[in-house]
This record gives sequence, structure tokens and C-alpha cells, in this order.
Amino acid sequence: MRVAIVGATGIAGQQFIDALRHHPWFEITALAASERSAGRSYGEALRDAKSGAVRWWCAEAPPAEVTRLPVVAGSDFDASSVDVVFSAIESEPARELEARWAVVRPVFSTASAYRYEEDVPLLIPGVNLAHAPLLRAQQKRRGWRGFVAPIPNCTTTGLAIALAPLHRRARVEKVAMTSMQGISGAGRSPGVVALDILDNVVPYIPGEEEKVAKETAKILGTLGNEAIDPAPIVVSATCTRAAVLEGHTEAVSVALARPCSPEEAAAIMREYVGGIEELPSAPRHMLTVHDDPFRPQPRLDRDADGGMTTSVGRLRPDALWTHGLRFVLVSHNTKFGAAKGAVLLAEALRRDGYL
Amino acid sequence: MRVAIVGATGIAGQQFIDALRHHPWFEITALAASERSAGRSYGEALRDAKSGAVRWWCAEAPPAEVTRLPVVAGSDFDASSVDVVFSAIESEPARELEARWAVVRPVFSTASAYRYEEDVPLLIPGVNLAHAPLLRAQQKRRGWRGFVAPIPNCTTTGLAIALAPLHRRARVEKVAMTSMQGISGAGRSPGVVALDILDNVVPYIPGEEEKVAKETAKILGTLGNEAIDPAPIVVSATCTRAAVLEGHTEAVSVALARPCSPEEAAAIMREYVGGIEELPSAPRHMLTVHDDPFRPQPRLDRDADGGMTTSVGRLRPDALWTHGLRFVLVSHNTKFGAAKGAVLLAEALRRDGYL
Amino acid sequence: MRVAIVGATGIAGQQFIDALRHHPWFEITALAASERSAGRSYGEALRDAKSGAVRWWCAEAPPAEVTRLPVVAGSDFDASSVDVVFSAIESEPARELEARWAVVRPVFSTASAYRYEEDVPLLIPGVNLAHAPLLRAQQKRRGWRGFVAPIPNCTTTGLAIALAPLHRRARVEKVAMTSMQGISGAGRSPGVVALDILDNVVPYIPGEEEKVAKETAKILGTLGNEAIDPAPIVVSATCTRAAVLEGHTEAVSVALARPCSPEEAAAIMREYVGGIEELPSAPRHMLTVHDDPFRPQPRLDRDADGGMTTSVGRLRPDALWTHGLRFVLVSHNTKFGAAKGAVLLAEALRRDGYL
Amino acid sequence: MRVAIVGATGIAGQQFIDALRHHPWFEITALAASERSAGRSYGEALRDAKSGAVRWWCAEAPPAEVTRLPVVAGSDFDASSVDVVFSAIESEPARELEARWAVVRPVFSTASAYRYEEDVPLLIPGVNLAHAPLLRAQQKRRGWRGFVAPIPNCTTTGLAIALAPLHRRARVEKVAMTSMQGISGAGRSPGVVALDILDNVVPYIPGEEEKVAKETAKILGTLGNEAIDPAPIVVSATCTRAAVLEGHTEAVSVALARPCSPEEAAAIMREYVGGIEELPSAPRHMLTVHDDPFRPQPRLDRDADGGMTTSVGRLRPDALWTHGLRFVLVSHNTKFGAAKGAVLLAEALRRDGYL
Repeated sequence: MRVAIVGATGIAGQQFIDALRHHPWFEITALAASERSAGRSYGEALRDAKSGAVRWWCAEAPPAEVTRLPVVAGSDFDASSVDVVFSAIESEPARELEARWAVVRPVFSTASAYRYEEDVPLLIPGVNLAHAPLLRAQQKRRGWRGFVAPIPNCTTTGLAIALAPLHRRARVEKVAMTSMQGISGAGRSPGVVALDILDNVVPYIPGEEEKVAKETAKILGTLGNEAIDPAPIVVSATCTRAAVLEGHTEAVSVALARPCSPEEAAAIMREYVGGIEELPSAPRHMLTVHDDPFRPQPRLDRDADGGMTTSVGRLRPDALWTHGLRFVLVSHNTKFGAAKGAVLLAEALRRDGYL
Repeated sequence: MRVAIVGATGIAGQQFIDALRHHPWFEITALAASERSAGRSYGEALRDAKSGAVRWWCAEAPPAEVTRLPVVAGSDFDASSVDVVFSAIESEPARELEARWAVVRPVFSTASAYRYEEDVPLLIPGVNLAHAPLLRAQQKRRGWRGFVAPIPNCTTTGLAIALAPLHRRARVEKVAMTSMQGISGAGRSPGVVALDILDNVVPYIPGEEEKVAKETAKILGTLGNEAIDPAPIVVSATCTRAAVLEGHTEAVSVALARPCSPEEAAAIMREYVGGIEELPSAPRHMLTVHDDPFRPQPRLDRDADGGMTTSVGRLRPDALWTHGLRFVLVSHNTKFGAAKGAVLLAEALRRDGYL
Repeated sequence: MRVAIVGATGIAGQQFIDALRHHPWFEITALAASERSAGRSYGEALRDAKSGAVRWWCAEAPPAEVTRLPVVAGSDFDASSVDVVFSAIESEPARELEARWAVVRPVFSTASAYRYEEDVPLLIPGVNLAHAPLLRAQQKRRGWRGFVAPIPNCTTTGLAIALAPLHRRARVEKVAMTSMQGISGAGRSPGVVALDILDNVVPYIPGEEEKVAKETAKILGTLGNEAIDPAPIVVSATCTRAAVLEGHTEAVSVALARPCSPEEAAAIMREYVGGIEELPSAPRHMLTVHDDPFRPQPRLDRDADGGMTTSVGRLRPDALWTHGLRFVLVSHNTKFGAAKGAVLLAEALRRDGYL
Repeated sequence: MRVAIVGATGIAGQQFIDALRHHPWFEITALAASERSAGRSYGEALRDAKSGAVRWWCAEAPPAEVTRLPVVAGSDFDASSVDVVFSAIESEPARELEARWAVVRPVFSTASAYRYEEDVPLLIPGVNLAHAPLLRAQQKRRGWRGFVAPIPNCTTTGLAIALAPLHRRARVEKVAMTSMQGISGAGRSPGVVALDILDNVVPYIPGEEEKVAKETAKILGTLGNEAIDPAPIVVSATCTRAAVLEGHTEAVSVALARPCSPEEAAAIMREYVGGIEELPSAPRHMLTVHDDPFRPQPRLDRDADGGMTTSVGRLRPDALWTHGLRFVLVSHNTKFGAAKGAVLLAEALRRDGYL
């Protein structure tokens, strides 16, 4: 399948290029970015003419065949030239542009523009693909041949994955969460300024806490009549930024409706099968559970299983609640939490006949 | 008053020397440390013979008159040669040595050895000096002329100070807390190893969470018959280490027995008077409340008011509880949370006639 | 004297406000910044309306009387309303604006716009105030009542101060220098991006190496006929950015024309008197020399003497040259290397009758 | 071939285990470490009984078959039970123990104990395998059936590799080098303490500069009569520690005997063939040359080609010398600079008939 990446020069767009390296099903055939990059090859667009710097932030260099592709302006991009669109643009332009592309093609997006629309599911492969039929309703209602399938906020993703098996077993009622988020989640123009974060913690990320609360309830909800009924879970989050490059660490306290010991929790987390194991970008395990109390750590665990497993540790009872659990998780914010997660979603929906 | 510092070459001991610089009441007249340093001047003891390095970690160099003092071995130290002992030794040797010194002199200690004894109050000036009379019971029961007055764990201190006015107003029932602690709290032999913390968060500090829970309840408790009745507060903590030099950041969620809006909470925090304002090491305010949602930050706020105020921000309702509040605090772990806090306690007890 | 700060909301401008706190001679009476800030009070201009963040980066909050001052647009600023102008604007607009202000008033600038003009000295108090008479030639030639007095690049400043006494004693011929520069030198909009510098070194700072070479030769040169004859010193620099908040560290290798042992070098550095000791912002010593081989370190030494002394250590012979020396220096890039250095220069020129 | 790793629980030993993962020629069949670990399985030896922490610092977990191996005390280790010994012990015990093992088996060592012995070559595959015959002389002279083959200091390795083609082309005469070294080079017990390096640069690493000077001359020397004639190169180094996890960055200035433009230098570096390309651990290129002036950077370039290529950038003329060049290099200190480099050396010597 021919795929386009829109917002291709930004950090999120680059991560799409990285996530699609050697992909067995998807081939990048079109790239779009800002007006400034339009008309140049991708390789030229990455190079800053004045300083000579190459603005590429993934570990491995971009594939040569991608650097030769021409870049068009996002506003001029013709979605019908490809089979699938991966959108890494900001939420404000996403509102209009993603709708335009969705008229003809499926759009997988890291932007928040459509996440909270009634006819838009917030899909995490392995967690709530049962919500995917809502895409059909979306197409029908909006008269689109394609659809918009946004992925959740990177901070929500790991939390929802860790809560999913607990919710199934013992019903999650309340969640207190404090995140210590990596700086790559903020993008790079300018993203987090070094003077703000070195030897520091920043205790606020605008809008993040509301997103986590709303999205977690939607993801763990049930598919109703042309909409998702959110799960009745109160999520109270404090989202902070830490001096960590990548990987979001979250300290989680959960109130459950029914008893679940730490040992049981560890067991159901370890046994948690997402039903996506055979997909190219899927992890071997949705969750990895550590016994070493010093784990998970973002630097040591973010890249486990290609950045696609959520690592959990420090499982213990929580005396705050009648049936309480506490744990710490680490999730890779720019792998499962962003581009690679969107690619995995596209894989799942292709398998399930939506593409 | 003549004071001794025991454990004088370690980082905590150095902070005592720093905290007593130009002190109007206390003069350092004796220093004790490990066998290895004994018999040398303090200046010599700080210098590593092999590499030439001077092992001193405070911003300002040690006073010349202190570097000239001789160092004796902690086990040989004669407490009767001074009026007050400040102890910065490890908890294990503290068990025996602090008891020996307390026979003749008051001992102020950063060690945890005596914190949980029935006849030992855990005093924070401005919070619970009403527990000080328990020291008299301690003296009587143990037959000591002096006493042991340990200060709380550095992570407890800021939390207890922030909770104190809320507890008075609306009764604190439950506390969920996640800390992101500075590395200086771990001391320096070896303390936190750089390979463990750069670009990382470590989600576990052995023993810390239990200390915070137990100590908070004791500090906010009431003085009963020769013991403290702990406050019935459930504290559920996750203590993590962050890539921050100094300052502990804590994300706190509080369940209150009675309503208290964020505005009221901010007001009572701002008006909180500890009754210690005139003491040499006291802050102007026990608590500093920020409106800027990006504050407090450890690097920007740890040194406020000489490291002796606890900075609070992000005050907001917490939907987890009927009467809930959330906030973030920053407290200086090696100022109010360690040596300088112990000096402030000594000042308060001197004013109140205990020395 | 009434002083204005232009570029007052940026990080360099804020450092001027910080450097002038409680100043005995200069009072801030006017502030100018970008169009966006114009028409608001300084306190309002610092506050981001959308997020509520206060954009202030110095340790101590701005003085209340300064936050109440109105901000005018830099292009509308009338220099005749003050006695002295401190300019913290970018080099491009500085070209035109500083010339406009210099028609009527002395302008002290951190911008590089005028540094390399023939009739503009590059003054460092304590090093080359003998070049100050060139300001008279500048006034005459340009028909200005004021003048433009730029300070050198922050990386040049510490190097020139350390070389000055060696040059006087033994004539410096060649200098190989590698800098490891703090991130605050890059300003803050956006300055250094955290993703670029955490766990990293960036081996290039555009333009920096040429500036250091040219400026060092000019500063150590001699005042000729209406111009400076640069000293015949070859400076070969590699300027890198390190994960350090403030303070520039420089590893220096010097070829001298005449013998000078490390001991002699240490002695002449320690005895180096700049003739500015009585000025309000001057350090007690131009240079501080360390014997501890692990010093100087930017975090420990940048703030020595109010950030106004240059710390030197690791003085040793350098076998590369017939008469060679090697050493490491640390200089505070935003104190002596920027605003506070410009204030010190204004103090020196006032004393010497130029204001 | 059966190989043993001695010093297996330390960070350097772990890197040997990592470097030998899936190795086609070498199989780990024996492990030795300190007395404390002896008698336990390797997996048990890694686990701290008290805290539950697993002390393993490589990205991927140790192979299951290795964790099951028993650990013997280094002093009891019988070298004749294997074919090759990889030694990751400290230099002091290495003196005696490596000699004991070399009586019967080849020993490849990261320790400095034997580096400066007359009959010991300091081999870097791709650079000076022509010195290998000295091992035969060593065997003869000492009556050993095996030999000791130490690898150079990690800071020397990258420098020697970058200088090698320049030396061949234009004869290197003088080198001024400033290193900014990653913290992993210091090992981990305790290694670099976080309080010393966060927001800092440490300008001294004891012994390092002398090693770099001596070893570079030896490596680039010529094999004479039962000894190496060191190359007449003056190396003047300043070695500093930076807040970088892994990767040593070195700013290098080179005086050449003959002209060599930056373009020529880049060309000969790019064309540099080490003659080891077919070995399992060899890089595709000894040197990678960057045109982007912001490269190489340790975080971006240390892992290039499996951590086995040396990355060079910022090639430019150096006005300090008649024929001068300046450049910056990044080399992976714990890959080519340590365990993996030693494994590559063993591969080369096996190919060449020494094992």
C-alpha cells in the first residue's frame, strides 16, 4: 500500500519514516510538509541552508529512497495519490486538512483534533479494537470514503494498556496518576528548552491532564449506538516534565471494585494477550512486568520490544482504597505512544478489513 | 553555645558547617568523623592525599577557623566538651553513639535511628513544637541529662509542612504522593551513581515510602501520655529519584474531611504562621504559594528564603475525593530537610528552654 | 544616572535588570522591548496570557519598581530620556538602532554589531581600558554625542582575562582552545533545545570560533592612530556546547615567546590587579587560581565572586611548544561575560570621565 | 572456542558478555569475579539480596545460558579450562593474575597493567596489527604458551584510529587534544557520582592524559627488534568528564609534516580500509566522516556501526601549524574502546593464527 506522511519534516513525521523502515506492507510514496519545504527533495528539506545542519533526530539516518522523494505543501497534498495517510501535523490545521483527506482516504493521526468527536473511536491495538466499527458509522454520517482514526495522547497510551487487564478483571473505579514525561513528547520547534529542564522538573504540561482523564475513560468504554460510552473511571493526573529524553514514567494508584492482589495483577498483566501478535509492528507482550523494585526505568525500559511494550513494576497494595493497587509504568512516548503506534493501528485495521 | 558536628566530613556534616556559618548563637568548637580522618585538621581531612582533590560540596568554602579544627574519631568523641551535638552519622552507628552522647548533652540528628521510638518526638519547628515536652519524658525515662531529637526524613518535611494548615482547617484523611527527589538526598559515598540517573528516573528509594507514611502521621499527631498519638492519616507514597541536584518535588493528592476550595487552601497556606519567625534560620514564610502553573520547580524554588520555605503550586480540586485537593510542592532536602532544619530546631528548643 | 534597558524581556535583558539590582550609581528608569510587549507594564509583559507562565529566568524575582515600569517598543525608544543605554538586542537590529541612540547617549551593548569596526574598542575592565580613548575618536568621526561600547563575546571574555597577565609577562604567540559552553549563552528563544543537549555535546556554535580569534587579538592589541593594532596572536578554537546551565569551561594551550613556568604563571595570575577593585560590580580578584586538579568546574566556580572572577586551574607545562603552558578556565558567561560585564564597563567609564 | 570472562559482574565484564552475544566463533563457558560472587550462578551474583536490584547495565538482558553459569573467584580461576581469557579486572590485580593465566592461554585485557611493557604490543585491529609478531617474542622471552594482549585506554583508541591515515599520508608531528568523556568510562563502583557531573564538567581524569600520550605514540610506532619504537609524536591532552552517558568526544588539532587539506583528509579517512572488514565484530568503515558541522555528537554517533566506527567531523585547516588540521571525533568508549574492541582483537589474532 502506498502511504503518505504529512508533517514529514517535524520530529513526529520523522518518526513515521523511521517506523515504516523496511515495512512489509506500507511503502512511503508521498511526503508533505510546510510551505517552506515544498518543492525540495526531502533530503534538501532537512538541511538548513545557512548552517549546514541536517535536521533529523532519529537514531538511524532516513532511507535514501525517502530522501529523494519530493516534498509538497500540506495544503496542496492530494490524498487520492496514496492509499493511506499518516498525519503528524498540529491539531489546529488538522481540523480542516484531515477532514479533507478523509473524504477519499483513511487518515491515521497523532493530532488531537478529532479525538473527542462522538463518531471517532480512540483506538489502541490490543486494547479496544472492538470500537473500530464506529469508523463505519463515521464514514456514513460524514459521507466520507476514508475516515479519521486518531491515536491517543502519548501519556494516555501506556496508562490505558496497563489498566485494561485490571479493568477487565476487577473494574477500575479511580486512578491517581503522576507522570514524569520525557522531553521528546513536546516535539522540537522549539519543544522543551534546555534551560527549563536541566537539573529540574516542570510540574505542568498544559492540557495534558484533561486529555489523559477523558481519553482513558473513552478507551476503556464500550461501543454504544454510534458512539462510545465512556467507562465511569475518575482519573486524577498530575503531568510533569522530567530531564529524560524519551519514555514516560507514570506512578499509578488504582481503586478497584473487586479484590486483586499484586500477585494476581502481575499474573494477568503477564498473560495479557492483545490479539495483535502477528502484526509487523506489534510487541511480543502488551505488558512486561518487573520483579526488580528499581524497574521500570525510562532509559533502561523504553526501548524494550522495539518501544512497543509497556513496562510495569513496583506492583503493591494501596492502602488508600478498599481494593487498591499501586504501580509504576514506563511507556515509549514516540514509539507506541506516537508514530509507531499509529502504524500498528493501520496494520490492525488493514488486517480487519478497514483499509 | 559550643556545638560539635559528628560525621563532619560527609555531605550532611558539611551542610551543618554551612548552616552554622556566622551563626549568632552557636559556635562550632568540635568536629568528629571516621577513624580515617581522626588526628588531622578538618582542612587536611577534606583533602584526598592521592589525587589532591578537596572533598567539599557546598557552594561556599568552609570557614578558615573550621578548617583548622582537629578531627576526632566519632567513637572517641566526648560530648561533655560542648553544649550541643549535631549528628550527621549513619543510622546504624547512631543507635549506640547518639544514646551515649545524650546521657550528657542534647543531640540533634539527621539519622533515623530514634525517630520511631515512643518517647522521641519528631519535631518540625513551625509545625509541631507542641510535641517538645515529650523530650522531658524521654530524659526522665532514660535517665539522660540530654536527649535525642531527630529530624524527619527530608521527603516528609515538606509534605508535613504543606499538610499542617490543611489538617488544622479541614482534617487530612488520605494522601497520595509521588515524589521526584533530588540526588543530594542520597549523600555522597557513593550516593547516586551518574550512570543510574542521567536521562532517567529511578522509581524506588528503599525504605523511603514507609518513612514518609509513618513520620507524617506522627508529626501531625497529638501529644498523649508520654507518647505521640499518630494522626489517622493514610499516606500512600511512591518515591522516585530524578535527575535533579537538590530539591524534592512532590505531587500530592489530599482527601479532606471537610470542604476546602483551592482558593481557601492558598489563603490558609499563605497565612500560615509557624511562630518561629524571629529565629536566626527561620524562613519569612513557612509556605510560599505560586499562581504561575509552571511553578514550583526545584531549580527555581529550592533556594527560596534560604532553602527554608516550602513552595506550593498547582492548587486545584481533586475529583478523586468528596473534598479533595491536588497540589505540587518543592522543598529543599538539604536545607530545611536536613542540616539547616536541625539547626532551626535547636534554635527553637533553645528559645523554649530545652537547651 | 538614569539608565534604560533595551531588549528588556529577553534573557540578556533580564540579566541587566538583575545586575542593576540595588546599584549605587545607576537607576533603571526606562525599558524597551519588542512591539508585542509595548504598552504593557514590565510585569505584564513577562506574563504569558495563555498559559499564565511568568517568563523570568533569574534566581531572584525582578524588583517590584521595575515590574511597574512601562515597556516601549525598541524602535520608538527615545534615548535622550535617560543618561545611559544598555542594549541587549540582537545584532541585526542593533546595527541601526544602537547608532541612533549613540547620537545622543552612550550605549553599552552585548550585541556583536559594532565589535569589529575600526573606531570601536572592545573593552574589558581590568584588561584594556587603555583602549577607551578610541571612544573619543569614534564620537568625533561619527559626530555622535554618545558612543557605542560593545562588550566581547562571552567566550572571549574569560580567555582574554586569563591571557592578559601571561601576555604582559611572556608574550602570547599561539593559543589552542576548546570550549565547553553553558547553554544559557544561547539565550532562550528558543536557545538550546533540550533534545539536542541532554546526554550530549554539540561540537559547533556558528560564528563563535571566528569571534574568539578576532576579539582576543583586538583586546590584547595596542591603541594606535584611531584604531586598535591587533596583537599578533593566532587563536585556534573549537567551541562546543555542553549540558551545563551556565559557565563556560575552556581548555587552553598557550605558546609563549619567553619562558614562564606554571608556578610563575600561577603567581602572576594571583597577583593580577585590574585597577577596578573599587567599582561596585568588580570582583576582588580578576583571576582565581586553583591547586585542586579537579577544579575549576562550571557548577562550583561560575558564581565565585559574584560571577565576576575567572577561575583557572590545572596549570602545567605544555610540551607542544618551546615555552608552553596548559590550563583550564571557567568564566560566567552571563555575569562578566554579558550584562554584569557591561555594567562594570559603564562603571569604569563613568569613573574615567566618559559618561 | 571456549572463552572465559574474568571480572564478569562489573560493567566492563558485562560488556564482554554483551559483545559475545550470538558470537559465531566464541562461546562463553566460564565466568570469574570477586570472592563475594563466587559459588553462585551468574544470575544470582547479579542480584542484590537486600534490595532485590539486578545489577546489570547493558541494554539487552544477559543471555539465559550465561545467567546459569557458575561464577568462580578470579584468584581460583583455572585458565586451562578455556581457550581464551577476556580480562576485565582492575589493573592492580591484573599484574599478577593475567601473568598467571598467560602461562597457558592468550589473555585479552582492558586493564592497563601490561600496556607499557617492552614486549607487549598495544594492538588496534585495522591500525597496527603489524605489531602482533611482538606477541611471539613475548611468549619466548617469558616462557608463556599464551600471551597478554591489552587493548589501549578508551580515549586513545578513537584518537589513534583517526590519526592513523593522516600519519601514513602526511606524518603527524604534534597533537593537541581536549576530550569530553562519557561517564561509563569510569566504570560503576562507584564510577562517576551524579552530584559531581550533573550540570557540570570535571576538568581532570587522573592518569588519563599520560596514557593517551604514551599509547598513541606506541600504537603509531614501528615494530623494531623485540620492542615497539614509538612514533615521535607529541600529544598534549586535556581530558575532561562531561554529562554524557557513553561516547568520548575529542577536539583534535594536528600538526603534520606535509600538506594535507581538509578535503584530502576527509577523502583518505573515508577510504581508510583496516583489512578487518570480514571479522564478526568489525565495522564497515574504520572512520565515518560528517559534512554536517554539528556532527559528530556522542548521543547521535556513538552507536554508529555497532559502536565500532569512529565518527569525525568539523575537518578544517588549523592556522596554528604550517600544515595543520582540526577536527572533532566521537568514539564509543565501551564498544571499540573496551570489551567489543578486545573481542575484535581476538578475532583478528585468531584469523592471523595467534590463537
